[in-house]
Amino acid sequence: MIKIGIIGAGRIAHVHARSVSAHPNATLVAISDPVERAASALAQQTGARWTTSADELISDPEVEAIIICSPTPFHTEQILAGVKAGKPVLCEKPVAMDTDTVYQLEKNLEGLDPTVMMGFNRRFDPSFAKIHDLVDDGTVGKVEQVTIISRDPAAPPPEYIATSGGIFKDMTIHDFDMARFFLGDITSVVAIGQNLDPALKDTGDFDGAIITLTNAEGTTATITNSRHCSSGYDQRLEVFGDRATVNADNIRPTTVSVSTGTATAAKDPYLDFFLTRYEAAYSAELDEFLAAITQGRKPSPDVTDGRKALEIAEAAETSARTGTIVHL
Amino acid sequence: MIKIGIIGAGRIAHVHARSVSAHPNATLVAISDPVERAASALAQQTGARWTTSADELISDPEVEAIIICSPTPFHTEQILAGVKAGKPVLCEKPVAMDTDTVYQLEKNLEGLDPTVMMGFNRRFDPSFAKIHDLVDDGTVGKVEQVTIISRDPAAPPPEYIATSGGIFKDMTIHDFDMARFFLGDITSVVAIGQNLDPALKDTGDFDGAIITLTNAEGTTATITNSRHCSSGYDQRLEVFGDRATVNADNIRPTTVSVSTGTATAAKDPYLDFFLTRYEAAYSAELDEFLAAITQGRKPSPDVTDGRKALEIAEAAETSARTGTIVHL
Amino acid sequence: MIKIGIIGAGRIAHVHARSVSAHPNATLVAISDPVERAASALAQQTGARWTTSADELISDPEVEAIIICSPTPFHTEQILAGVKAGKPVLCEKPVAMDTDTVYQLEKNLEGLDPTVMMGFNRRFDPSFAKIHDLVDDGTVGKVEQVTIISRDPAAPPPEYIATSGGIFKDMTIHDFDMARFFLGDITSVVAIGQNLDPALKDTGDFDGAIITLTNAEGTTATITNSRHCSSGYDQRLEVFGDRATVNADNIRPTTVSVSTGTATAAKDPYLDFFLTRYEAAYSAELDEFLAAITQGRKPSPDVTDGRKALEIAEAAETSARTGTIVHL
Amino acid sequence: MIKIGIIGAGRIAHVHARSVSAHPNATLVAISDPVERAASALAQQTGARWTTSADELISDPEVEAIIICSPTPFHTEQILAGVKAGKPVLCEKPVAMDTDTVYQLEKNLEGLDPTVMMGFNRRFDPSFAKIHDLVDDGTVGKVEQVTIISRDPAAPPPEYIATSGGIFKDMTIHDFDMARFFLGDITSVVAIGQNLDPALKDTGDFDGAIITLTNAEGTTATITNSRHCSSGYDQRLEVFGDRATVNADNIRPTTVSVSTGTATAAKDPYLDFFLTRYEAAYSAELDEFLAAITQGRKPSPDVTDGRKALEIAEAAETSARTGTIVHL
Repeated sequence: MIKIGIIGAGRIAHVHARSVSAHPNATLVAISDPVERAASALAQQTGARWTTSADELISDPEVEAIIICSPTPFHTEQILAGVKAGKPVLCEKPVAMDTDTVYQLEKNLEGLDPTVMMGFNRRFDPSFAKIHDLVDDGTVGKVEQVTIISRDPAAPPPEYIATSGGIFKDMTIHDFDMARFFLGDITSVVAIGQNLDPALKDTGDFDGAIITLTNAEGTTATITNSRHCSSGYDQRLEVFGDRATVNADNIRPTTVSVSTGTATAAKDPYLDFFLTRYEAAYSAELDEFLAAITQGRKPSPDVTDGRKALEIAEAAETSARTGTIVHL
Repeated sequence: MIKIGIIGAGRIAHVHARSVSAHPNATLVAISDPVERAASALAQQTGARWTTSADELISDPEVEAIIICSPTPFHTEQILAGVKAGKPVLCEKPVAMDTDTVYQLEKNLEGLDPTVMMGFNRRFDPSFAKIHDLVDDGTVGKVEQVTIISRDPAAPPPEYIATSGGIFKDMTIHDFDMARFFLGDITSVVAIGQNLDPALKDTGDFDGAIITLTNAEGTTATITNSRHCSSGYDQRLEVFGDRATVNADNIRPTTVSVSTGTATAAKDPYLDFFLTRYEAAYSAELDEFLAAITQGRKPSPDVTDGRKALEIAEAAETSARTGTIVHL
Repeated sequence: MIKIGIIGAGRIAHVHARSVSAHPNATLVAISDPVERAASALAQQTGARWTTSADELISDPEVEAIIICSPTPFHTEQILAGVKAGKPVLCEKPVAMDTDTVYQLEKNLEGLDPTVMMGFNRRFDPSFAKIHDLVDDGTVGKVEQVTIISRDPAAPPPEYIATSGGIFKDMTIHDFDMARFFLGDITSVVAIGQNLDPALKDTGDFDGAIITLTNAEGTTATITNSRHCSSGYDQRLEVFGDRATVNADNIRPTTVSVSTGTATAAKDPYLDFFLTRYEAAYSAELDEFLAAITQGRKPSPDVTDGRKALEIAEAAETSARTGTIVHL
Repeated sequence: MIKIGIIGAGRIAHVHARSVSAHPNATLVAISDPVERAASALAQQTGARWTTSADELISDPEVEAIIICSPTPFHTEQILAGVKAGKPVLCEKPVAMDTDTVYQLEKNLEGLDPTVMMGFNRRFDPSFAKIHDLVDDGTVGKVEQVTIISRDPAAPPPEYIATSGGIFKDMTIHDFDMARFFLGDITSVVAIGQNLDPALKDTGDFDGAIITLTNAEGTTATITNSRHCSSGYDQRLEVFGDRATVNADNIRPTTVSVSTGTATAAKDPYLDFFLTRYEAAYSAELDEFLAAITQGRKPSPDVTDGRKALEIAEAAETSARTGTIVHL
């Protein structure tokens, strides 16, 4: 049993707390959150002890591994503190709001033999992971074109968007990591931003985007984003190779289909909340983190993966704002 | 080019006339129908000559092969006349309204080396035929359970039903032949009839039925029939074997699907007219008839297949009326 | 928090123990199993206390509700004891191996105001439950024909079958309850049994079956069973009404489909273990049990539902053995 | 009956000849082709007369409407000649190999009241046309993102590519017209070209491409092209609007699906020949041409549509070669 401490007691901390509690090889021992009520509430639900100090949790001798669910600005310092305390760290994405901060972290981690995993949960989605396996085992052949459709069920309020860092860092960041999962390092980025939603007109941010990424071999990944989708959380992936095309479809709550005089085989709307849609992915992500610890190896994706997704997001923002193709 | 004469100028004769006209190896030369206006109209459309006498058409020296589309009571005598004239015959199903009449025909045909094909067009439907191929090539393994769903889009008027011979001879007859296509000879029949449609209450006929057929090896075929289906013409087939399960789904006019906030992936209603639904089957049926003639072999299915489907229909009627399992 | 005791510590007890542990409104306090090692192992995993005596658990004052997971022969006496102790009971199906025993139980329960729920978990499967909702809300219209395909992934060993009570009580019992879920009381049963699997030839039991049930209104339910299915656990339901046809498809581990030069849109095999396939159903079943307790109402399905499914199973056995339609 | 003359006797002329022959309101009276053998062969098959001179066909007083199937360099002069002869013209795409030539034609047609339709057959594909209807009737809501996947089954020989005008004019031209069908005039184009197929390396042409088009309202159309696809002719369309997302899937020869122990619901590969895939579209295109003639209105799409698709192709070539976004 690996003893886990969670920094943060917000929504995503609750997800991780549940995953840890349900996991046969892990147990949740400590929670920290500067908001006392939040920390104590989650502690009570899980039977863990709590503190308002992240430092206290990090240095708690009983805590063997740390999951960071604090706000983004705290990530790099807490990762570094965790590593210095000799503890494996799983940190929610993004690593930071800008790549310079991550470079600084990478530099600080040099020589410390860090075990740090970034929470790009979608790599662990059973369907996306299976497509990756089908590439690895040769079923797909040489990957030529990756197509990602990623649309949120409904736009967040303008206030959220104002502090989100923009659509590319806030939303597409997941898709950039997914593109890297299949293409590796990206060499060029071109992004077209859209302003179609009147409610978001004044935010200055895009509410839709088409981004095409290329790697050195000429493989492309095309990402289609929207802040809204009438049918739910639209999360699809297609990988086209010279031997096969593989697709992951959306997830629905049941397998029921209805046929009437006006429409046939009509199915449920998609699951429309990211925590439900990616529930299995969060659980499989924790598996990988714990397995890496147990086996004494480095987990993946790591801080560098986090930084590279951020670099693509910055390039996409530049491309969309200037109308140029950006080379990395 | 094989020169074809068609007996009858009704709806199904029009279908065959079009198939013959479009076929690269056949040409339509003559039409007969006692109703002068019907015969001349179809003749004009196709460029064939016409007559009100079936006998005249049968003995027409230019006519090399005959397609019989007359009312059922005329089938057996016209088949016999065609065979005696030395001509291959394709006859619409059913052979007759009762099995005794067919036995008599079979007896009369003995020694005449007849080339007679019965128009069980569904055997030639590309999807059903492909499933048969998948059985033949071993993909399915040993066939264990055949499931046929066969529902008409809408019930015919009570007047039609009054002279139809009953649901089993009028509608299920196709499904009985389909069951024989996969099971061969049937040894037991149990049928449950339904009277659910108030509009058909007074006809004395069933408007729905569940029939289970068995062959000597214990393979089953289960047929579900209804005179109506809100989504169109519901024609599905599943063959379950010990190596694979294979299905044929309904046919829709387009491949479009619509996803909204209340339903996703909703498709078109099914094609709802049997001539449209089985258009490709009628065409492939003619191919087989012409190929058999050209290659000097017997076409399939034949008169005996027609009689055996009729025997099952009679057994089903008995089973549904008496509440017993009928052994053949 | 409702405090639960579980009688039995076998495979299905583990499923219920997990559901109870994960449930926000229930807590597992006690386990009983005559096999000391089994009882203590499950107790250790869950933090509950244990005993080898079911009676002790039933009379334990802290235990507020009981889940019976013992072998079938113990069900009726434990249900009765639980009810007499004033405790709500959720009992795994079947109630007993024969209907006489259940009649006796029903008689003994008279006047005791029992709260007993039978664990027909499939009624709580999200897809099947949704279809029931679509009937209730009028989407389907008048139900005319129910089609149930229910095939196990692989046959159990002959030794299991020898003591199973036969395919109708052991396997089809679930489908009989599903039929009753939509048709209510059944008035006639006709069953065709199959002996196709050489490995099961000597068991004297059927390894496949086609059963058609009818209710007083003439609605039919057709069940197709097999002890094996190459693609996994094949569990489908179609309800055909005069306004709509609704289907529940099989469940697969991912939404991935693969398209190559020989096949397109090929999906995963089905989940092939009943506990995984019906995981959500077991959880929803517990919800209903707890909700009924909290709301002070009777849960459904109850002992009478259990007895009626058993009656149909006995009628099916008679029908298949004698080749007759059995009226209830 | 409208009397039709066809200029050209190659592969696509055969398609149109068949459509005209099968059409109830048209009859084929004349064929022209400088290759005598080609002209006479098609004439013999169809019963039309033939000539080696396109001018002779155009001026033939019996010819009421003209279908141009000659090589592209002849299109503009033959369109002009047909219009000057007072005859409606249906011309295969592209209008010309460059936009200057089309501008010249448009100028020459001014004041002549021309009835000229360009053969962008895909607009008439039943599935794509239905999606257009679903936009028109408001089902889709405001169109925001159009996604076109368009892959050929197999690359043509390098010799063909050498004279094809490049992938954008030869292949994507259809997709550009489809994008215009939904977006109207395009204001910006960005294209990423791929060179992945070793066999085509020396042609200097791209063998894959990702193109994103935008109109003045900010609606996008993203086109993914490849010269090859292992599963057949991959032709899909998705239109995402604020009320619904609608998709057109590929077309398969049957509705059969196969489920085994390794894959379930596996379907046929797609139709892999464009004439078979778009057979219904060619026929519906002729319907529109004849209907426009009969109703005395202008058919659509017209020469200007042809020129605008060509302009996008030229912009795409520039974008892909220079790595810039091109504004129109």
